Amino acid sequence: MTRKTATRKKLFRPRGKTPGLPPGSLVYTGDGEAPVPRVTMLDYDEHRVVEKELLRVDDCIPFKDAQTVTWINVDSVTEPGLLENFGRVMGFHALMLEDILNTDQRPKFEDYGDYIYIVVKMLDYDVKKNDIEIEQLSLILGPNYVISFQERPGDFFDPLRQRIRKSLGRIRKQGTDYLAYAILDIIVDHYFVVLEKLGEKIEQLEDIVITNPGQDTVRAVHAVKREMIFVRKSVWPLREVVTNLQRSESALVHESNAAYFRDLHDHIMQVTDGVDTFRDLLNGMLDSYYSTITTRTNSVMKVLTLFSAIFMPLTFITGLFGMNFRNFPELDWHYGFQGSLVLMVVVIVIMIAIFKWKKWL
Amino acid sequence: MTRKTATRKKLFRPRGKTPGLPPGSLVYTGDGEAPVPRVTMLDYDEHRVVEKELLRVDDCIPFKDAQTVTWINVDSVTEPGLLENFGRVMGFHALMLEDILNTDQRPKFEDYGDYIYIVVKMLDYDVKKNDIEIEQLSLILGPNYVISFQERPGDFFDPLRQRIRKSLGRIRKQGTDYLAYAILDIIVDHYFVVLEKLGEKIEQLEDIVITNPGQDTVRAVHAVKREMIFVRKSVWPLREVVTNLQRSESALVHESNAAYFRDLHDHIMQVTDGVDTFRDLLNGMLDSYYSTITTRTNSVMKVLTLFSAIFMPLTFITGLFGMNFRNFPELDWHYGFQGSLVLMVVVIVIMIAIFKWKKWL
Amino acid sequence: MTRKTATRKKLFRPRGKTPGLPPGSLVYTGDGEAPVPRVTMLDYDEHRVVEKELLRVDDCIPFKDAQTVTWINVDSVTEPGLLENFGRVMGFHALMLEDILNTDQRPKFEDYGDYIYIVVKMLDYDVKKNDIEIEQLSLILGPNYVISFQERPGDFFDPLRQRIRKSLGRIRKQGTDYLAYAILDIIVDHYFVVLEKLGEKIEQLEDIVITNPGQDTVRAVHAVKREMIFVRKSVWPLREVVTNLQRSESALVHESNAAYFRDLHDHIMQVTDGVDTFRDLLNGMLDSYYSTITTRTNSVMKVLTLFSAIFMPLTFITGLFGMNFRNFPELDWHYGFQGSLVLMVVVIVIMIAIFKWKKWL
Amino acid sequence: MTRKTATRKKLFRPRGKTPGLPPGSLVYTGDGEAPVPRVTMLDYDEHRVVEKELLRVDDCIPFKDAQTVTWINVDSVTEPGLLENFGRVMGFHALMLEDILNTDQRPKFEDYGDYIYIVVKMLDYDVKKNDIEIEQLSLILGPNYVISFQERPGDFFDPLRQRIRKSLGRIRKQGTDYLAYAILDIIVDHYFVVLEKLGEKIEQLEDIVITNPGQDTVRAVHAVKREMIFVRKSVWPLREVVTNLQRSESALVHESNAAYFRDLHDHIMQVTDGVDTFRDLLNGMLDSYYSTITTRTNSVMKVLTLFSAIFMPLTFITGLFGMNFRNFPELDWHYGFQGSLVLMVVVIVIMIAIFKWKKWL
Amino acid sequence: MTRKTATRKKLFRPRGKTPGLPPGSLVYTGDGEAPVPRVTMLDYDEHRVVEKELLRVDDCIPFKDAQTVTWINVDSVTEPGLLENFGRVMGFHALMLEDILNTDQRPKFEDYGDYIYIVVKMLDYDVKKNDIEIEQLSLILGPNYVISFQERPGDFFDPLRQRIRKSLGRIRKQGTDYLAYAILDIIVDHYFVVLEKLGEKIEQLEDIVITNPGQDTVRAVHAVKREMIFVRKSVWPLREVVTNLQRSESALVHESNAAYFRDLHDHIMQVTDGVDTFRDLLNGMLDSYYSTITTRTNSVMKVLTLFSAIFMPLTFITGLFGMNFRNFPELDWHYGFQGSLVLMVVVIVIMIAIFKWKKWL
Repeated sequence: MTRKTATRKKLFRPRGKTPGLPPGSLVYTGDGEAPVPRVTMLDYDEHRVVEKELLRVDDCIPFKDAQTVTWINVDSVTEPGLLENFGRVMGFHALMLEDILNTDQRPKFEDYGDYIYIVVKMLDYDVKKNDIEIEQLSLILGPNYVISFQERPGDFFDPLRQRIRKSLGRIRKQGTDYLAYAILDIIVDHYFVVLEKLGEKIEQLEDIVITNPGQDTVRAVHAVKREMIFVRKSVWPLREVVTNLQRSESALVHESNAAYFRDLHDHIMQVTDGVDTFRDLLNGMLDSYYSTITTRTNSVMKVLTLFSAIFMPLTFITGLFGMNFRNFPELDWHYGFQGSLVLMVVVIVIMIAIFKWKKWL
Repeated sequence: MTRKTATRKKLFRPRGKTPGLPPGSLVYTGDGEAPVPRVTMLDYDEHRVVEKELLRVDDCIPFKDAQTVTWINVDSVTEPGLLENFGRVMGFHALMLEDILNTDQRPKFEDYGDYIYIVVKMLDYDVKKNDIEIEQLSLILGPNYVISFQERPGDFFDPLRQRIRKSLGRIRKQGTDYLAYAILDIIVDHYFVVLEKLGEKIEQLEDIVITNPGQDTVRAVHAVKREMIFVRKSVWPLREVVTNLQRSESALVHESNAAYFRDLHDHIMQVTDGVDTFRDLLNGMLDSYYSTITTRTNSVMKVLTLFSAIFMPLTFITGLFGMNFRNFPELDWHYGFQGSLVLMVVVIVIMIAIFKWKKWL
Repeated sequence: MTRKTATRKKLFRPRGKTPGLPPGSLVYTGDGEAPVPRVTMLDYDEHRVVEKELLRVDDCIPFKDAQTVTWINVDSVTEPGLLENFGRVMGFHALMLEDILNTDQRPKFEDYGDYIYIVVKMLDYDVKKNDIEIEQLSLILGPNYVISFQERPGDFFDPLRQRIRKSLGRIRKQGTDYLAYAILDIIVDHYFVVLEKLGEKIEQLEDIVITNPGQDTVRAVHAVKREMIFVRKSVWPLREVVTNLQRSESALVHESNAAYFRDLHDHIMQVTDGVDTFRDLLNGMLDSYYSTITTRTNSVMKVLTLFSAIFMPLTFITGLFGMNFRNFPELDWHYGFQGSLVLMVVVIVIMIAIFKWKKWL
Repeated sequence: MTRKTATRKKLFRPRGKTPGLPPGSLVYTGDGEAPVPRVTMLDYDEHRVVEKELLRVDDCIPFKDAQTVTWINVDSVTEPGLLENFGRVMGFHALMLEDILNTDQRPKFEDYGDYIYIVVKMLDYDVKKNDIEIEQLSLILGPNYVISFQERPGDFFDPLRQRIRKSLGRIRKQGTDYLAYAILDIIVDHYFVVLEKLGEKIEQLEDIVITNPGQDTVRAVHAVKREMIFVRKSVWPLREVVTNLQRSESALVHESNAAYFRDLHDHIMQVTDGVDTFRDLLNGMLDSYYSTITTRTNSVMKVLTLFSAIFMPLTFITGLFGMNFRNFPELDWHYGFQGSLVLMVVVIVIMIAIFKWKKWL
Repeated sequence: MTRKTATRKKLFRPRGKTPGLPPGSLVYTGDGEAPVPRVTMLDYDEHRVVEKELLRVDDCIPFKDAQTVTWINVDSVTEPGLLENFGRVMGFHALMLEDILNTDQRPKFEDYGDYIYIVVKMLDYDVKKNDIEIEQLSLILGPNYVISFQERPGDFFDPLRQRIRKSLGRIRKQGTDYLAYAILDIIVDHYFVVLEKLGEKIEQLEDIVITNPGQDTVRAVHAVKREMIFVRKSVWPLREVVTNLQRSESALVHESNAAYFRDLHDHIMQVTDGVDTFRDLLNGMLDSYYSTITTRTNSVMKVLTLFSAIFMPLTFITGLFGMNFRNFPELDWHYGFQGSLVLMVVVIVIMIAIFKWKKWL
């Protein structure tokens, strides 16, 4: 049930934009009910951290050109008006705003000169629903700010906020590109969590496929395979996104952080390798299931044929001596009954011999 | 019925040109009946819009070099004479005119220097026929004009005309490349509509495949898969077309509109991703169906074998005691009948035990 | 029958050259009986056309350096001596002559500096044999001459000769590269004819596969698939050949004819697209057939099992009351027979109920 | 049993790093129990060899800049503290240290300028477990040192140490790049050993598949196929690693050793070729198995049908003459019984004739 | 039998080098018994030919720098000592010598500066064994010498020697690169012979698959498919080898012979095309076989079901009237027997009608 609801969501997501609307028209296309978006700000440099909730988009104007790193997080993208304000205040391109609202984008990297726009998919494993949740994150990387638009409210980035507050690691000493990296890194770390959960499922299924597979097993394998299609679709294009970030000649990405982005790229490669491995394993399991079923059908058939080959002649013999012909001298023989039994045993022996010879037993 | 008619159309489309005709010979190859083409003109700049129907091709000469943007739309390509006139008046290459008439082109981009020729496929979902309609659009992008040749009359571009008339968005302030972009954008927006419809179909089929698949389901899955082949064929080469437009060094495409063409490219990538995902889902459904049928056949076989394994011996026993041998003392035993019943019960128990042991029950 | 003969021809074509013969050894490898080759010449420029049959290869020497366009057509390549003469007279490379004789080449483009050598496959649909004929055409494009070597006599190029004679189109005003293009264009036009015929076959098969497929249908699908393998093999490498012609820096191909070669390339792309589409359709048909058969087998099995599940118990009951035990009081009951009938009806009802419950009915 | 334990290990390997930890956090992720790592050092030049066990990481400081080649081997990577010390003493990048600890990396090459970091997978065939062991090796190639981190203690490199001690081959005359090559060469040599063992398994399976395949055979084939997935995953990316080493512009890899790295690359190509060949063979075996089973099922069905087609009519005839109608004159015929026998023989003959005619016998 | 022995050979070929041996260690790895290698020399220029057998490797020193073309052929590579001598005398790289001994190389091209090293696979069809023989040939192309190392003695190159002796073709006027080309050309010519034999096999199998396929046919198809895997593996990498030769900037390959190497490349393309075509045909045959078997099983099932559906009710009716109830008035009816026969006919008619209606007949 849950699964189907979740996947139906994935298949549908109609684009809000009716064909013919001007490009850059802002229409929300997510499928949740629209909560009021909460805009929080985290402004920091090596020495201090300021955290507050922004009530008006215009409040972020002072931070646009400040020398501190400003991270603005919008926890849902349901309100076109809010995005229009961001566009107006920060001078963003209308097409990018449209893309932020359209939550069925494929991961991409776009360099608008003054800022870089990145779309990634956040994957999370919902333990209650036993299902993978896919959420879109839009990331705008500017010289002094990073703005992140989540599709739905969530606490994905709390550990990162803690690191900033407590100045763990090197994040407080770094610029906006490192912050963007740190956000992407958390997302990719979650991919591994999702892979691990899928791996567990696959392992359980492998055990069942080897021991006692049934229709349910196959259905479960197909369901996981179906999930893999969407995971793959979400993760695969990210390789190119990070490669573009790495090779970007934009002044927004500093050479000194190259190692981090390369590391990120490696992690994504590991994830896509894992996805491919899982897909191969699932296909192997399906093949294995089919061979099991085919072989079983074959042996069921042999049993049926064996029974038929033995009992059909026997029943025929009994029928023969059960006929009511008046003139049927054999019925009067003294050892007729015993003779018929011997005949039957001979039939059984011959049949079993044939089956042995044909290696069906 | 409808489906077959529609696809037959797609498979056939014979080229009008007999082998050996000189290249550039104009022969109409569409399969509709030939309506008289209607040529409409929309001439605009930032300040004013002029709309009129052209009765003679020569009427468009004054607009060829005017500084306004002139959009000429021809709503069917059934009349070679009309195209010849366009060729003569505008100085178009004969091969291009031949391509416009030949409505079975694959999407392509050709830079003729003074003008750019683009072929795209318009996809629409015909709700009445429950079928995808594929139509060819030829687009000629010149310095001051855009000429579009539809295969069949239709109202695809009415919203765009409205935007021009009412000066919605930035279209009135832009040149011919933006107009071409806007036309392509509407076409790609329609791809999403078609995908959504296909997605709905696929979802319904998924539900049936999981609950109670039958021969009809599989036939429907195959029919959708077949449609996907043609959608894919229509959409896939468009990626290259738009990439060529983006990277074109032609003076006809302005650098300032790069973001729009990039956005268009992204949308096409989304569509092709969607098509691939659908194909994977459909293949998964077929696999799932086969495993269901194979497993069912297996269990039907088991039931049959179970019945045979139990009733064949029983019937044999009854046959045995139904034989008419005169000398058959067992028949005279007082508890003969009861004994035979006990024997039968023993057979039943043994058979069921064997089947339990073999895990067939 | 016909089909097999035809394909056998394709599979075999042994190379005449025994391993170890020096390269450039001329041995005819075609499989027809060797007719005496007919060498015809068509010499033209804008003002006049001369046509004659050449009896000796040396007769073409005067045309080698004349300013007119000379088209020499050899209508079969069975005579190594003739080729040697051409090689001597025109100064052709021995390896090229060997390739002309070896009629199992793959399409290729070779720039020998003074002349360009092109191998293409001519496809034609033999309506009588209901089969595709594949023939090799070798084309030598020199500065003032085009020499074409057909594998077998045929009237492929008659329409082109008419165009030259009657000066239709621009051919009389153009050079040898345009003539080569015109020859290739006719060949590619014939590909469309072949595709159309194959499309017709496929459509007929599709109708049968949906309505009432049998073993013959599948065999026919496989036969068409098999033909597609050879068509694909013949057409696919031609894309590269034409690309090489287009991009050739040879002085033999003029920039002004680029549009024609590009158009040719587009046509080949359409053909290969069509071939791929047909292959996808054929695979879909096979899948569809398998699912039909599998589902049918399943329902046949259900019917069998239903009959067995109902009649085996019934027959057992009749057998039971047909036993000849002396002490069998039930047989003496007044309503024994009616009771047994009731028992049988109960069995039938239970069985049908079970089958209904299992959704087998 | 063993197999499943081993593969479970491969599927799982959770990353120690919780999402949100700063990059470069050192958490051990291997799945063995953590032995105390042993750090051994081998310091040599052309003239002398020094070997000792390092108790403190700081002991390797003097060798960092010495002109001799220093090979430090750490035989397990379970202790983050040790790695931190290496990082501090040698100035290694935190991300690299994290990668060393994370033993589920894919093979990779990273040039950090002063040193090169290489990850490879060591494959070994555990004869006792009849299973492939996969272990990660991290290799740091510096100007005067090579540091190797094994995942688990083992004697993979003893022959290499012997060659250094006894100055066999040219190793003592070469620098660190040759040492790195020699280490990689041993690892790749072991790939061949693993391939050979897999080849033996596959050959045994091929024999069984041809003679008498059963469900166990298929299961074994699938198990080997599954192992191939992991072998392929371990070996495939190594091609790129060695290509990068070959083409590296780093001063750490000398041009004079290019032939060795090229040779290494060739060996890896041979291994990947072998893996692909094995995969093709395994798929062929599965196909072959299916065709065997399908054909067998078909002939079992024929036997069953033959028996049914012969005995069902016969039994019907006996039943017919076993009916108890009072008025049944045929039963009183003198040759009634003989007549019924003749009738039965006729039925048998007809049935066999039909089956012969249908080529089922 | 023969086939299996042959393939076992291919699968195994263990590398003689134990992991850990220094690179360049010479260990023979072929699987034949080690004959004493015969070293023959053919020294020629335009004017004279000298042929002799070399007893000591040092005998070839004088020819190393002579202006004549020297072809040294070693007819087996079983003796590491011989190779060491070649290495010492000619100054060959140790890794190359190791590769010559290791007869399970993939085809490759290596430019060592002073000489070029080429590995190719010689394929031959052993008519007696009805099997493909694969043998490795190592070719060293130097400025004045070509050295060829055959894996096993054989007469592959006798026709070439004849051509040199008799000065057929241009070989005596050409240098070492032409000689290398001539050797490769013979090898590729043999590929065509092997392909032709495989083509014959495939054609025979195609006939059987269409007319009367059985388990043996499928087994034979799989066996050919298996052979194709090894042929493909041997031929495929040769494309790259010849491309490298063609594009080599080495002074050892002269521009003037480019046409020959290009021709060679074309031939290899033809071979690989042929291999791919054969693979497609074999897969098509397997598909065709499956569909035949599946359809047959289906029709066998229908026959079985038909018999059951007709005779089970009939037998039940006879059983009914064979019951021994005392009170069974129907048995006393005068036309009871005839009535029962009518009932049976009705059952038969109904059953056949149902089957007709379901289109099973």
